[in-house]
Amino acid sequence: MSAPPLRVALAGLGTVGVGLLRLLAANGQRVAGRAGRAVQVTHVAARDRSRDRGVPLDACVWWDDPVAMARDAEADVVVELIGGSDGAALATVRAALAAGRPVVTANKALLAHHGMDLASAAEAAGVALAYEGAVAGGIPVVKALRESLAGNRINRVVAILNGTSNYILTHMRQSGRDFAEVLADAQRLGYAEADPAFDVDGVDAAHKLALLASLAFGSRVDFPAIHVEGIRHITPLDHAYAAELGYRIKLLGIARRERGAIEQRVHPCLVSLDEPIAHIEGVLNSVLLDGDPVGPVELEGRGAGAGPTASAVAGDLVDIARGNAGPAFGLPVADLAALPTLAMAQREGAVYIRLMVRDQPGVIAEVATILRDARVSLEALVQRARAPDSTVPVVMTTHSAPEGAVRQALDRIARLDAVVAPPAAIRIENLSPDA
Amino acid sequence: MSAPPLRVALAGLGTVGVGLLRLLAANGQRVAGRAGRAVQVTHVAARDRSRDRGVPLDACVWWDDPVAMARDAEADVVVELIGGSDGAALATVRAALAAGRPVVTANKALLAHHGMDLASAAEAAGVALAYEGAVAGGIPVVKALRESLAGNRINRVVAILNGTSNYILTHMRQSGRDFAEVLADAQRLGYAEADPAFDVDGVDAAHKLALLASLAFGSRVDFPAIHVEGIRHITPLDHAYAAELGYRIKLLGIARRERGAIEQRVHPCLVSLDEPIAHIEGVLNSVLLDGDPVGPVELEGRGAGAGPTASAVAGDLVDIARGNAGPAFGLPVADLAALPTLAMAQREGAVYIRLMVRDQPGVIAEVATILRDARVSLEALVQRARAPDSTVPVVMTTHSAPEGAVRQALDRIARLDAVVAPPAAIRIENLSPDA
Repeated sequence: MSAPPLRVALAGLGTVGVGLLRLLAANGQRVAGRAGRAVQVTHVAARDRSRDRGVPLDACVWWDDPVAMARDAEADVVVELIGGSDGAALATVRAALAAGRPVVTANKALLAHHGMDLASAAEAAGVALAYEGAVAGGIPVVKALRESLAGNRINRVVAILNGTSNYILTHMRQSGRDFAEVLADAQRLGYAEADPAFDVDGVDAAHKLALLASLAFGSRVDFPAIHVEGIRHITPLDHAYAAELGYRIKLLGIARRERGAIEQRVHPCLVSLDEPIAHIEGVLNSVLLDGDPVGPVELEGRGAGAGPTASAVAGDLVDIARGNAGPAFGLPVADLAALPTLAMAQREGAVYIRLMVRDQPGVIAEVATILRDARVSLEALVQRARAPDSTVPVVMTTHSAPEGAVRQALDRIARLDAVVAPPAAIRIENLSPDA
Repeated sequence: MSAPPLRVALAGLGTVGVGLLRLLAANGQRVAGRAGRAVQVTHVAARDRSRDRGVPLDACVWWDDPVAMARDAEADVVVELIGGSDGAALATVRAALAAGRPVVTANKALLAHHGMDLASAAEAAGVALAYEGAVAGGIPVVKALRESLAGNRINRVVAILNGTSNYILTHMRQSGRDFAEVLADAQRLGYAEADPAFDVDGVDAAHKLALLASLAFGSRVDFPAIHVEGIRHITPLDHAYAAELGYRIKLLGIARRERGAIEQRVHPCLVSLDEPIAHIEGVLNSVLLDGDPVGPVELEGRGAGAGPTASAVAGDLVDIARGNAGPAFGLPVADLAALPTLAMAQREGAVYIRLMVRDQPGVIAEVATILRDARVSLEALVQRARAPDSTVPVVMTTHSAPEGAVRQALDRIARLDAVVAPPAAIRIENLSPDA
């Protein structure tokens, strides 16, 4: 092995950055074998030089400014693990590409917002922009879509992309406890951040879905087009009724090609217990791809954390060491299609509805009449607890109906006197291939 | 896109070969986009020129001899889809590599037997030998192991690699019918070949496992080292008792690194219903990888058939069109380790045992004594049907025990007067990560 080592400039020494250094310390020989040359972190940039991170950094040149490092360090590739959609991360990646250096990043927010610009810059420089670690941790789905499944027309991506939300939903269901309590537990255990908004409001999953949709459909990354809802409004009651009806509640990212447009959405769904994805629990991620002619392909694993993400970054480094490269999103940016977005109101599907009503004669009839007038037909109705004049849940599932019609009906139902809280509605997602 | 097209010489026009031509006809523009150049089948070789295969071959140069084509055609890459471990397939691949042409094949038998020689020839010629389609159809597991997970120490591979066997086991369980009947059905439906031996005797799964083990462990392909058992001896009774005990019967391929050696085996297993792989039904394949630091990664999809295999071949062609290449088994052949094989007798694990005994006093005591003397301890014993002096099943599960000890005990048990048929034994596979 006489090829010179691949010199890596690493920006960011958080858990993933340290995870990468650990991986190279433990498996460096393996990586060198696969890469055909040694892979060595020769430069690092982080804020606090004094902190002990448990990994030796003596052999590395220290930079206080990651942008200066990306521009000036004698390195063959820059790894960006700073995080955040703008600021230092963006400036670092821009500086690296401008200097003609390939970039590896695990930053989904950055790519969801600036992916097209950065991919163009990488193309102009003739270097790689690799980001396997940005989507679903160590699950090799970026490479699968960009390379392995290149011969397919991909019609749909359905995925659990945020481990924190999935952990919370799993534990709410298992324990019967509230969102806020389970979130607090997850924060104590390190599965949720102090500010959980990106995770529990669906934003992080949407960042990742934007990248997957581009890779799947050969379309431009279009994060603003994604319809995003989180899981804060899900209650233990909803988990219990979902189970009773044969479903489980999951925060799914769904991207679908339909009638020359694409639909991209992240929101809680009721998924049948017959679907494998209903059984992906805790912090695991899962990505289901439907391609023609490959059929359904499912990939599953840990979606975040130091080890899985470092694994993905190392895989990208091996590609760069070997000179394997192609356009960041599978096609040159100029060839990525700008596909129109399918409006949510046009979506057709079944819905789970939970009302909190005063238990008095005629309420069900009023609700049913409103739904009938909106041409929304009921599939099931559950009202088990009877407690005259106090508040009880009424749960319904509908047959497939246009989302706009359901929304209008729910607005009318919300105004009924006997309905004491805003109706809760969760989409029922039919994942069978012919759906 | 000014790069010249990638000219493909295709040897073999069976279902997969025709599937590749269909894929390129339907998705050629997509493939060209991903490959950065057109991918065109310009030469074909097959036995019967007159047969109508439903795809236009007018633009292709026809060769009667695939070896001559591989050697002499003006093509950039040779795709071998003839099949078989020797004969025309081997000669064609050798001729292509000798002529300095990269090769794509979906032929697991060929690579299980000649993988090391062929990889050496590809290295000597400085060209790619790609074979994503040889393992698990359209599931991109070869690339995942060779590239995406290059930073990991892979400790274990557990997989369902033969769709025919899995289909038969699934339908035996669901219908309660015999192996022979369900096999005949599968043959009628085209899920099993006229000569089903390779599928139902575990040989096909072992071919694939040999390739996965090499990719996972950086070791030489060692097909003769694999312990192989098939599914012919599984009965409806075994399916029923397995279900009662909380298991499902699956034909698994397992490769594990242990104490500097590797264990490679293909045989039916009882797998807990808590394991996702227990729920992989019908013709689907599934591959579970355990890596450090990535953790568990699972990939799943259709393991055979024209569409999935053509998808894998097309992915390999895109790699070759882009100039992405590396050693066939992840490392240069000279660097692949020749790891010793762990003997099956050294395996420790639990076992399901079914005896057919004459229902008479003292039988259970005799059996239990033999097991105790062999230091094999029982976990459960089921003898439900009582029918004095006629034959009844007695089913036991053991705690973990050395396989050699269990075998010796079973030999003694088989010689008991009251035991009227050879004992049936199926290994219970504990797949939890710390097992």
